[in-house]
Amino acid sequence: MDSQELMKELSRQSPSKIVLLVIDGLGGLPHPETGKTELETAKTPNLDRLAAGGVCGLSDPVLPGITPGSAPGHLGLFGYDPVKFNVGRGVLEAVGIDFPLQAGDVAVRGNFCTVDDAGLVTDRRAGRIPNELCAELCELLDGQVIDEVEIAVRPVKEHRFITVFRGEGLSYEATDSDPQQVGVPPLAVEAETPEARKLADTANKFVESAKKILSEKHPANMLLLRGFSAEPGFPSMNEIYKLKAAAVAGYPMYRGLARLVGMTTLAVGTGIGDVFETLKQHYDAYDFFFLHIKPADAAGEDGDFSRKVKVIEEVDLYIPEVTALSPDVIAVTGDHSTPAALSGHSWHPVPLLMSSEYCRRDAITDFSESSCLRGGLGRIAAVQIMPLAMANALKLAKFGA
Amino acid sequence: MDSQELMKELSRQSPSKIVLLVIDGLGGLPHPETGKTELETAKTPNLDRLAAGGVCGLSDPVLPGITPGSAPGHLGLFGYDPVKFNVGRGVLEAVGIDFPLQAGDVAVRGNFCTVDDAGLVTDRRAGRIPNELCAELCELLDGQVIDEVEIAVRPVKEHRFITVFRGEGLSYEATDSDPQQVGVPPLAVEAETPEARKLADTANKFVESAKKILSEKHPANMLLLRGFSAEPGFPSMNEIYKLKAAAVAGYPMYRGLARLVGMTTLAVGTGIGDVFETLKQHYDAYDFFFLHIKPADAAGEDGDFSRKVKVIEEVDLYIPEVTALSPDVIAVTGDHSTPAALSGHSWHPVPLLMSSEYCRRDAITDFSESSCLRGGLGRIAAVQIMPLAMANALKLAKFGA
Repeated sequence: MDSQELMKELSRQSPSKIVLLVIDGLGGLPHPETGKTELETAKTPNLDRLAAGGVCGLSDPVLPGITPGSAPGHLGLFGYDPVKFNVGRGVLEAVGIDFPLQAGDVAVRGNFCTVDDAGLVTDRRAGRIPNELCAELCELLDGQVIDEVEIAVRPVKEHRFITVFRGEGLSYEATDSDPQQVGVPPLAVEAETPEARKLADTANKFVESAKKILSEKHPANMLLLRGFSAEPGFPSMNEIYKLKAAAVAGYPMYRGLARLVGMTTLAVGTGIGDVFETLKQHYDAYDFFFLHIKPADAAGEDGDFSRKVKVIEEVDLYIPEVTALSPDVIAVTGDHSTPAALSGHSWHPVPLLMSSEYCRRDAITDFSESSCLRGGLGRIAAVQIMPLAMANALKLAKFGA
Repeated sequence: MDSQELMKELSRQSPSKIVLLVIDGLGGLPHPETGKTELETAKTPNLDRLAAGGVCGLSDPVLPGITPGSAPGHLGLFGYDPVKFNVGRGVLEAVGIDFPLQAGDVAVRGNFCTVDDAGLVTDRRAGRIPNELCAELCELLDGQVIDEVEIAVRPVKEHRFITVFRGEGLSYEATDSDPQQVGVPPLAVEAETPEARKLADTANKFVESAKKILSEKHPANMLLLRGFSAEPGFPSMNEIYKLKAAAVAGYPMYRGLARLVGMTTLAVGTGIGDVFETLKQHYDAYDFFFLHIKPADAAGEDGDFSRKVKVIEEVDLYIPEVTALSPDVIAVTGDHSTPAALSGHSWHPVPLLMSSEYCRRDAITDFSESSCLRGGLGRIAAVQIMPLAMANALKLAKFGA
């Protein structure tokens, strides 16, 4: 029995409320001139006050040394072991454009490509056609029904799109049609298991149909598929924690990840203030809120130390709006570190703050990497954050007699 | 190979001695007026001296956020993963009245109940008959042999008792006879596996016999059984650690738990001083001692902060009697936290102190939650305490060449 199974057994519905504030890419590395990280440089009087009344620590998103992508980073925070709960590439891409996947769906990534008269691939990206053309071509292909399988085709960016197959008895274990090289024809999709024969068959018929539809659309006169994967059928947060959970996330990828674990996604703008405004509007209707703040990660990815500092300072201004609602538990952390010094995600443990009436306070009075290192939560795995939040909300029964 | 299997391979018998002092419910939460926990409030010069010469840390009884009952709390301290080593309800109840269970025994909880002339249950608790009557009725039912199965019936409290079935080929996978409602007859016990048929058959014959014996004993004219479970057959501490282990525990539940892992239970009173007196008397005969101090937990459960402080202070007075014996390792901890602020067990990590010639001392000079947070042992799972104690007693061989 793992921690999640324990949660299923021990969790109890109750009126208490939990707010999980995820500042994407929160953790950082010191600026060479000041020796302070982005979070340590930012003026955060409100987060510091929350830290002073709560308990801090550091969390490893997956395992020490492992740099997570957005999917494992968030699944860990939601209490799903990111090594065990895997999201396939096609599903992640569909989730990333907010496509409403259903149980049983199979999603795959696609490229528009160029083929010559002999049908050999000459450009795997069709000259990176503009977004508008991609959207037009997707519309031509979208909505077909082949052998009772509904096929959705949606644009992603430039030559990239997704295709979702919806019907009875589909399985995702099938090979790519993308040959990953030019000068050869696209490959037939082949089933890797007997269960995947129907999917492979339908996919090949879809490719044949697309070939005809696209024949006059040079340079985008053909398509390639890769990364078939199935909607993963994760147990929902309601099943595990008996929570009525809502996601307040402005970006589609994070709404999609929240939907994979059964959260209701609330409409919200992409500004930082929008997130907190949406929380207030819907505060009475749910008992768990996942708030997602994207721009800290984006600044880190751009290597922009001072912009990341400013994002953190802006988030801090809204903390009083959360505390004014008096949730039973407020947890603040990130899904991973994104140090400006690395211009990308990293493996460094992430600052974590938990505030509740029943947390055992530590001596930390400011929210920062170096303070969290001395915090009362110690260093924990991200998957342990939800059990701790549930405990602090008094939503867990005793284990064993 | 898990930690326990490693212990089996690496442990060596030696003359060195380990004393594990368990102050039940030791960990706490700060008093709102002083900001200090029960342990931080208590004057504990002797524990502080031990901490100064030893190494401290915090331990999670099961996993972060999980609040353990007494069974998982103690199994962890004895080095048995409490999620893996499960004790059934019937067995725990039998253990709780110090019933000497043997391998193969099946135990079940029972209620005396009231049935009407039609045999329908009218009161599942028989009006909560007094303890004395419960004991009399149990004597009437005790000692029967049905199909070569010996049946023991022992009182617990009011209408509650336990029944233990002892014989060849018994298995516990059987349903309750307790219908959990009134207005219906008791249910027949049904085997859930083929192996449990003999147990179910015997249990039903026992119920029939009891019905006759109790027929004139209104309101306790029938009984209900629930929670069949088997003596779990855990590997003993002798098998795992090659220790001759003794339990010094005044309360039956803890003696019973110690017996489940093969400890010898020594006769002892329920006073705090009795525990240390018994340790002295038997010190030469064993190489591992589990000392159990109950009243700290009881005070916490009652929400009585100052009584818990006093219990801890009283324990402290006896520490010199332990150190005077010069055991090679002294470990002091709790099976879980029981903060007076929560009037119950909690998930908070538990202070841990280990004193030995070979521990790597840290800078901690007082034994408290906040100091242990900075201790040299860091934050560990309770199942790691025994391996550490064994190492400090130089009872473990090197792993690998």
